[in-house]
Amino acid sequence: MRYLMTFSYDGSKYNGYQKQPNKRTIQSEIEKALTTINNNCFVSISASGRTDALVHAINQKAHFDLNINITCDKLKKAINSLIPKDIYVKKIETVSDSFHARYNVLAKQYIYKINIGEYNPIEKDYVLQLCHDLNITEIKKALKYLEGTHNFKSFVKANPDITDYTRTIIETDIKEENNILIISFLGTGFLRYMVRNMVGLLIEIGLGKRKSEDVITILNKEDRTSSGITALPNGLYLKDVFYE
Amino acid sequence: MRYLMTFSYDGSKYNGYQKQPNKRTIQSEIEKALTTINNNCFVSISASGRTDALVHAINQKAHFDLNINITCDKLKKAINSLIPKDIYVKKIETVSDSFHARYNVLAKQYIYKINIGEYNPIEKDYVLQLCHDLNITEIKKALKYLEGTHNFKSFVKANPDITDYTRTIIETDIKEENNILIISFLGTGFLRYMVRNMVGLLIEIGLGKRKSEDVITILNKEDRTSSGITALPNGLYLKDVFYE
Repeated sequence: MRYLMTFSYDGSKYNGYQKQPNKRTIQSEIEKALTTINNNCFVSISASGRTDALVHAINQKAHFDLNINITCDKLKKAINSLIPKDIYVKKIETVSDSFHARYNVLAKQYIYKINIGEYNPIEKDYVLQLCHDLNITEIKKALKYLEGTHNFKSFVKANPDITDYTRTIIETDIKEENNILIISFLGTGFLRYMVRNMVGLLIEIGLGKRKSEDVITILNKEDRTSSGITALPNGLYLKDVFYE
Repeated sequence: MRYLMTFSYDGSKYNGYQKQPNKRTIQSEIEKALTTINNNCFVSISASGRTDALVHAINQKAHFDLNINITCDKLKKAINSLIPKDIYVKKIETVSDSFHARYNVLAKQYIYKINIGEYNPIEKDYVLQLCHDLNITEIKKALKYLEGTHNFKSFVKANPDITDYTRTIIETDIKEENNILIISFLGTGFLRYMVRNMVGLLIEIGLGKRKSEDVITILNKEDRTSSGITALPNGLYLKDVFYE
């Protein structure tokens, strides 16, 4: 039976989502728990995509197969009792055997949190501590230029394995709550570091170091060096993954 | 010269505020930094009061004396460059030599955060993960009974060193933001575990296990066993300390 799992995690104590030898990762903690539940027969999970070290997830998704018969409700309780308390399985549902958590993704949403107020030690692992005011109007304009279908090569480290840098950003948003800016990106797919590199440029625009219209030139250059800094991982959250 | 310092910390990685041999505490981290700044002559700091292990502070206050001449602004920068990133000095001001951060306290405010929604692994160290709905109307009524001057012996572990259990709660408040209840207590002073024991009772009232009027009986009994559970430290924040 194939299951689809929705889960959340605090990435600050992990070496990212993806399994690596001798490193504490989200994937390995969940696989260990599922293998125990599956009568010690190894279970491998396939997520919608990896998240990097220190990046958080609110609704990450992954599928897996089990040999045993167990209801979704019991399975949820069993996993949560075996995984560390900074990972939590919110929902489990059964899916068809052809469902794939990565290949079937229609869209993903990421959010990025920036503290534009005073440094906050209590949120240091959960919000980028910029501690500087930003011009939100200019960032909003820049976000509009990022929306749509573009070649995002300027926002990604060159990688010979990537044949197509074209992605579609369906919708963006920015809001402020108690000096925390929350920027969101809904897109059909994101390349590695793409969100953090876009946020890096947006910060430079918000600081007045670049103009919002520079986004157009940068996208057209298709060159990573034309763009800006890479925003730190601690402010990034995989918010949602959408399927048909 | 005597200085008054306002500082914030994430208590989740510390064995409380107060210095203890061979343990990581807020006080020892700050004293270590100040001693370095003070040409390695030992500096001792006196806070408004201690906070227990895993409890956070938004605006804790402490005073200390230095031998050297340094502006408040430079001192703030110097301390922040030497202490861990989960402690932050927000403000330094000079005070008279007779000022005492503990003895001169007029009032203190604590807040307690309770998640009444789904378990959130990202906030596990920062909010009590109750994950159960509470009757806010009944908690509001109970808070009204706690306001005023009372003997709070029912909310404190018996201690022969305490001669007077009378304290005044000036004002309480409760609000909800995205499934997080924030209960606040403004009072002239608080005994050890008093806030967490009051919150423990409020949770029992909110769950319908006790009635709001029980607060009156419990206060009158002056007996800890009449009261309720002790709420976990992770949801507690020292919010503010007030002087004349």
